[in-house]
Amino acid sequence: MSKHPLDPIFHPRAVAVVGVRSKPGTGMMGGFYDSLVEAGFPTDSLYPVNPKIDELNGARCYPTLLDTPDPVDHVISQVPASVVPQLVDQCVAKKIRSIHFFTAGFSETGNEEMAAVEHTMVEKLREAGIRAIGPNCMGLYVPASRLAFMGGFPMEPGNVFLLSQSGANAGEIVHGLTSRGIRFSKAISYGNGADLRAHDFLDYAATDAETDVVAAYIEGVRDGRQFFEALQRCARVKRVIILKGGRTQSGSNAAHSHTGSLAGSIEVFDAVCRQTGAVRAETIDELLDLVVAASTDTRHITGRGVCLFGGGGGGFAVLSADAIDREGLTVPQMPRKAVERMREYIPVAGSSVNNPIDAFPPEEHLDDMLKLVATAEGIDMMFMSPITGRWRPPAPDEKSSDDEEDDDTSTESERQQKEMAKAAEAAALKMRHLQDETGTPVVGILRSGRMARMMGVRTDSFSRAAYREGIGIYPSVARAARTVAQVLEWRNYRKGLPDIL
Amino acid sequence: MSKHPLDPIFHPRAVAVVGVRSKPGTGMMGGFYDSLVEAGFPTDSLYPVNPKIDELNGARCYPTLLDTPDPVDHVISQVPASVVPQLVDQCVAKKIRSIHFFTAGFSETGNEEMAAVEHTMVEKLREAGIRAIGPNCMGLYVPASRLAFMGGFPMEPGNVFLLSQSGANAGEIVHGLTSRGIRFSKAISYGNGADLRAHDFLDYAATDAETDVVAAYIEGVRDGRQFFEALQRCARVKRVIILKGGRTQSGSNAAHSHTGSLAGSIEVFDAVCRQTGAVRAETIDELLDLVVAASTDTRHITGRGVCLFGGGGGGFAVLSADAIDREGLTVPQMPRKAVERMREYIPVAGSSVNNPIDAFPPEEHLDDMLKLVATAEGIDMMFMSPITGRWRPPAPDEKSSDDEEDDDTSTESERQQKEMAKAAEAAALKMRHLQDETGTPVVGILRSGRMARMMGVRTDSFSRAAYREGIGIYPSVARAARTVAQVLEWRNYRKGLPDIL
Repeated sequence: MSKHPLDPIFHPRAVAVVGVRSKPGTGMMGGFYDSLVEAGFPTDSLYPVNPKIDELNGARCYPTLLDTPDPVDHVISQVPASVVPQLVDQCVAKKIRSIHFFTAGFSETGNEEMAAVEHTMVEKLREAGIRAIGPNCMGLYVPASRLAFMGGFPMEPGNVFLLSQSGANAGEIVHGLTSRGIRFSKAISYGNGADLRAHDFLDYAATDAETDVVAAYIEGVRDGRQFFEALQRCARVKRVIILKGGRTQSGSNAAHSHTGSLAGSIEVFDAVCRQTGAVRAETIDELLDLVVAASTDTRHITGRGVCLFGGGGGGFAVLSADAIDREGLTVPQMPRKAVERMREYIPVAGSSVNNPIDAFPPEEHLDDMLKLVATAEGIDMMFMSPITGRWRPPAPDEKSSDDEEDDDTSTESERQQKEMAKAAEAAALKMRHLQDETGTPVVGILRSGRMARMMGVRTDSFSRAAYREGIGIYPSVARAARTVAQVLEWRNYRKGLPDIL
Repeated sequence: MSKHPLDPIFHPRAVAVVGVRSKPGTGMMGGFYDSLVEAGFPTDSLYPVNPKIDELNGARCYPTLLDTPDPVDHVISQVPASVVPQLVDQCVAKKIRSIHFFTAGFSETGNEEMAAVEHTMVEKLREAGIRAIGPNCMGLYVPASRLAFMGGFPMEPGNVFLLSQSGANAGEIVHGLTSRGIRFSKAISYGNGADLRAHDFLDYAATDAETDVVAAYIEGVRDGRQFFEALQRCARVKRVIILKGGRTQSGSNAAHSHTGSLAGSIEVFDAVCRQTGAVRAETIDELLDLVVAASTDTRHITGRGVCLFGGGGGGFAVLSADAIDREGLTVPQMPRKAVERMREYIPVAGSSVNNPIDAFPPEEHLDDMLKLVATAEGIDMMFMSPITGRWRPPAPDEKSSDDEEDDDTSTESERQQKEMAKAAEAAALKMRHLQDETGTPVVGILRSGRMARMMGVRTDSFSRAAYREGIGIYPSVARAARTVAQVLEWRNYRKGLPDIL
């Protein structure tokens, strides 16, 4: 299969960072040189450029792009907007392939002159066959190519493609999904989208063999027809989740200031998503949850009946049942026979075996009980936490401090951490087996924070272990229920499209 | 002022724990003896009772309640339900004042016989002038009396009264509010409410001088008229926030299994809240946010115009503006003059000074800029994070690990922690001053997790410092906006009632 024309942009062999900062790491954003070094991009193909610096962390710093060794595929521009026309000329002379403009101050300022500069520079680059990312953005994160635009991004590749007009939101999405076990094929923050924009990336993702799931944060679409067609091609064969920023008047004003995006009709946008078979998220949290669902067996759920197998107390069960019901799912009562069977080993006092199941069976009955409820009439999915199953996490280290953060692990030994990782894997495997044996999809609930810590559960390691087993983990019953409801709706309007859910 | 008849129940001088566990601390729930010792209840007035144990952690354990020294005010029952009738007789003989039944297995089981036992025991106790809490609950948390039903509850008293039919939810609410700086006058988990129930506690809270704010988690109301009247008395003079569990069919089924509560009409319940001037929360998170609002100057907000003064990037600003707008608040554009003034020291590239304000002014202009935007036309409140203001937190300790929890503080020195606490106080004071100087209420946004940690902000210590300055802190813009919208609605339907918002 021939590669998409954009493919080389994601795999540059030599990168120049022009206008590189002399004090890298001083800001959250813009430490591109540092991030690339941290990501493991070969330093002998990485060229810092800044006429005011001779050396950067031991590497030679070049006065101009034209002074760098040949060839340079990709340029990251950190120069001020006023210097951009000059840099563009140098890029043309240097015959680069792509340029990412971190540089801001163009059309998004509302200044006509700067909008014209943006237009002219893109025209000039296009004529020379150079594609532009941005301006006003963070650019590329491609694990396989050792590209990253922030510190702390994992370098293990995955199957999620992210396109985002906002760098900060891209960072939040990458970190949020990473902690839930998900990894990326490519991510791109493209800001104003003066040249390359949503439809280009959707078109690319549609045929990218490394990509199964596409997540998008979009503030504005410049070419409705092209967007529609690219989304149609992409959403047909990939699971596409879209968060539209600027849905309200206030948000739309903010988007105009941010990336120069103009408000289109939100009704039209939503209709386009629906028609093409993409699913819409309303918030970043929803986007994260939907990507998890689209990446795990949560996407295969077809019914509405939930068995909540929970430890969290009766009050937790009540509010959880409310949350499930509110999303249009159901919490069917357990058949009388199943109840009677469970009552053989579960005392009446302080427990409920109806559904939600709020009971702690003796360990030797746990597996039987799980199978019993998972196969009960009306149950289409299990909602359960790793806590409930009592997969022997280490004894909780209950502290008297009431401070939730930051100070509760200094005494935690390496050994304990390993045990927790093992417990996480065992718990994930147990969910997988329950699902395989009963045919009932399992949805993991793992409330983070104090409760998880008390139980000795490491949210991240458990989420990762579960993800590898195809089990989606959600931070609350409410979010799990909402996600499942969205998946059901999504499948519903995908009727007639390839069955990728 | 004469004390309410229930007052002595909250201040027992001698407590017996009957059926005390021989291995305390083995369960999350039911370690009452341990919790009381941890809470500092005088051990010479604390009597463990269990015929099978001679000694408990060095304290003498009594075979029966009747063997304990006189007087005993309050009994905590951990005996099985079958033994309860016998214990009740002993309580009458011992002339105790109140008994808390942790013991479960009564009316909530749906078993008529056990429901009858519950009824009989309450009758017998009442005749003897003994009040009962429960059964099937966690009982009392009263910092001033050194009573607590879980470990880790703070012993510093506060002004929030909590009543909850669920012990687990009570624990979650106490911990959730504690981490946000709030402290309690009294909290009570009352389970089935066979004797004392919502209307008793509301009636008490109405005249309790130590209580300003009342939070309630209620699954069912047995006496509608009494509940209405007590709520009316209480909500007239105290700020009352109610979360009703079992609002849906599924939740109502679960509530019936949990505390034997019967579903009433949810419409009637909601109307009662509205009519009496209480505010309703839909989830525990909403309840926490509303208690914070009712405990801080957030409750004084009267308008809808938000200035979001944020660091978080343009995409964050866009989604935040959407979230604010969605709640019926507005994000007014800054007047041209204010924009021009800010542009004198804020470069055009990579910033927005319209609103949301996404800009980092030079330190020397920060105060002026804050005052300028806080007093701009149409601005009724400031939404801001402590990050934005750059109150010099220690340099972020960015980690390469992508694990969010548990392992990021082992290198953090005591000194750094103190510096952070100081930074938190300075940040809170800065918000307070801005509010005092401009008359515009300040609402704090502090996103927890990775972002806050990267910025070196300790969520808890900052929330506490802010609370002491009367500034409410919320974990996201969306939640802050929702809370403010609820406060506005709350004030609206309190028209004609005393002005306590």
